[in-house]
Amino acid sequence: MKRHAWPVPFTALATLAAHPAAAAPGAGLPSWNEGPAKRSIVQFVQTTTDPASPQFVPPAERIATFDQDGTLWVEQPIYSQVIYCLERVPALIKTRPQLATQEPFKTVLSGDGSALVRLTKDDLMKVLEAALAGMSVEEFRSQVRAWLEHARDPRWQRKYTELTYLPMQELMRYLRANGYRTYIVTGGGQAFVRVFAEETYGIPPEQVVGSAGGTSYGYDDHGNPVLTKEAKLVLMDDNVGKPQGIELMIGRRPHAAFGNSVGDRQMLEYTTAGKGARLAMLVLHDDATREYAYGPARGLPESRVGSFPAALDEEAQKKGWIVISMKEDWRQIFAFER
Amino acid sequence: MKRHAWPVPFTALATLAAHPAAAAPGAGLPSWNEGPAKRSIVQFVQTTTDPASPQFVPPAERIATFDQDGTLWVEQPIYSQVIYCLERVPALIKTRPQLATQEPFKTVLSGDGSALVRLTKDDLMKVLEAALAGMSVEEFRSQVRAWLEHARDPRWQRKYTELTYLPMQELMRYLRANGYRTYIVTGGGQAFVRVFAEETYGIPPEQVVGSAGGTSYGYDDHGNPVLTKEAKLVLMDDNVGKPQGIELMIGRRPHAAFGNSVGDRQMLEYTTAGKGARLAMLVLHDDATREYAYGPARGLPESRVGSFPAALDEEAQKKGWIVISMKEDWRQIFAFER
Repeated sequence: MKRHAWPVPFTALATLAAHPAAAAPGAGLPSWNEGPAKRSIVQFVQTTTDPASPQFVPPAERIATFDQDGTLWVEQPIYSQVIYCLERVPALIKTRPQLATQEPFKTVLSGDGSALVRLTKDDLMKVLEAALAGMSVEEFRSQVRAWLEHARDPRWQRKYTELTYLPMQELMRYLRANGYRTYIVTGGGQAFVRVFAEETYGIPPEQVVGSAGGTSYGYDDHGNPVLTKEAKLVLMDDNVGKPQGIELMIGRRPHAAFGNSVGDRQMLEYTTAGKGARLAMLVLHDDATREYAYGPARGLPESRVGSFPAALDEEAQKKGWIVISMKEDWRQIFAFER
Repeated sequence: MKRHAWPVPFTALATLAAHPAAAAPGAGLPSWNEGPAKRSIVQFVQTTTDPASPQFVPPAERIATFDQDGTLWVEQPIYSQVIYCLERVPALIKTRPQLATQEPFKTVLSGDGSALVRLTKDDLMKVLEAALAGMSVEEFRSQVRAWLEHARDPRWQRKYTELTYLPMQELMRYLRANGYRTYIVTGGGQAFVRVFAEETYGIPPEQVVGSAGGTSYGYDDHGNPVLTKEAKLVLMDDNVGKPQGIELMIGRRPHAAFGNSVGDRQMLEYTTAGKGARLAMLVLHDDATREYAYGPARGLPESRVGSFPAALDEEAQKKGWIVISMKEDWRQIFAFER
């Protein structure tokens, strides 16, 4: 497993490992500034894991769900999975040369930025289908793995898997150290995220819930069974699809849920509608210097991806969902910052 | 958790708990007679968990999948979930009285056995839909829980959850003691099986994969979010649906798979097509005295449920799948036998 730098003194780490309950509260959250967000997390964990607490949650029920894009890693200027699909087109052309003269593949191949932004949603869906379906599940995994190895993001020139938020990594480890099982519940592709979630987040494939296409079961030339990825969606895991996906794949209501945009609204609503202690948090991207700033809540610029409108901000205030300000609450955003 | 009697000497149990690797091989399988089936299990576990073995399987990859009906519990004379749906009809009539005069509900209410057997598949589907959809996921769980508490099977007059096979319970515990995660992969209803799987088998809801209907997300009169069960199937988890369900819900190929009928064929095929050590086993119901006898393989009577045809028997021989003879391989079938 890849190790991200984790600036906790070694002695604190050792203490945490040996006696999770005996560690100083919040000792595993060094990238979080002291403030209401960090306090809410520590208080929630203490309340739900202390057997003497009236809000104690038995270990089997300790489920925490995390959106991915914009919550665990960068989603600007566009979702990494979309970049994957666009960058996959040249390889697609090698096996299906006839696509080179067809739209939208011709435009994608041209590399003409101004033409690319004009691609319609339908155009994009054609590229996504071609990049995400039609191959065996094993072929798909090795294609994504190879791309993750060589691809670099345009701003930091880092691997996409390095663009994860250190405070959220710490939060997931802190929850796991306290008996919580951490799940990703993403509008992105379940099969895509599963390729790197274990190495990047310590989350195994069976704890990744996402938008999922079907598969067909057939045989290769040697008579070996093959699962082939299909374009047809079995689960669209966004908005109402998030609680639906949680019910389908986990079968328990989470006690904690983390998101950053309107697509996470129903997951947070469903989580906090349960009895007993529940924690719901939303990451607000308000740090253009260290990451990005977009809303349009609180006068931040609008964004095509990961919209956080004023109505969501108001609902959060009303329902006690905690808004995490990247600028105020996070001492450090990426492990590679020094 | 409910405790099933488990005829292992206490000292052996204590040893197993303290030092799983130090226990005598197969010590956790007292209801299995010595023979090829038990030997295959013990050998598979030793080969895949010994770090010095070339066929060692890392703990994260240790997945074992179990069919339920006919593999973990009795499926004769008809699936327990179908009995649940039929016995649910009187309660349905209370909330929807107009059904009492409509077919097939009228026939079900009549209790006329000869009319009941003549119900078509479409008739049965109407009853299943009415009993399994249209209510919130929480209401459904409490309805099933209440039924399981009072319902008794016609032959042994036991709770349905007592009709589980002790050797398979031991096998699941033995695998878990050796780092395997045990999943149910059933053609039956995922939501139905999840209600009792944790208490009955020690398998949590998130490790139950089954035929699953969709849910709709809405609100009750107080504005609380509600997931309502829908009749529309998201996953038909039988035949090719089993490897498809495994890919959707687990995302890893199992190293061991257990079934008892044609509906499990593709799951076993997919499992054993993987590299390294794999174990595939089929329970053959050849014990009319202690349980039931049906095939039609090996001259056993035909059955409407859980068919084990001669072709499956031949495929098993050819591919090294182990056929478990209830009569020969199981010393004791139920915990309540004494």
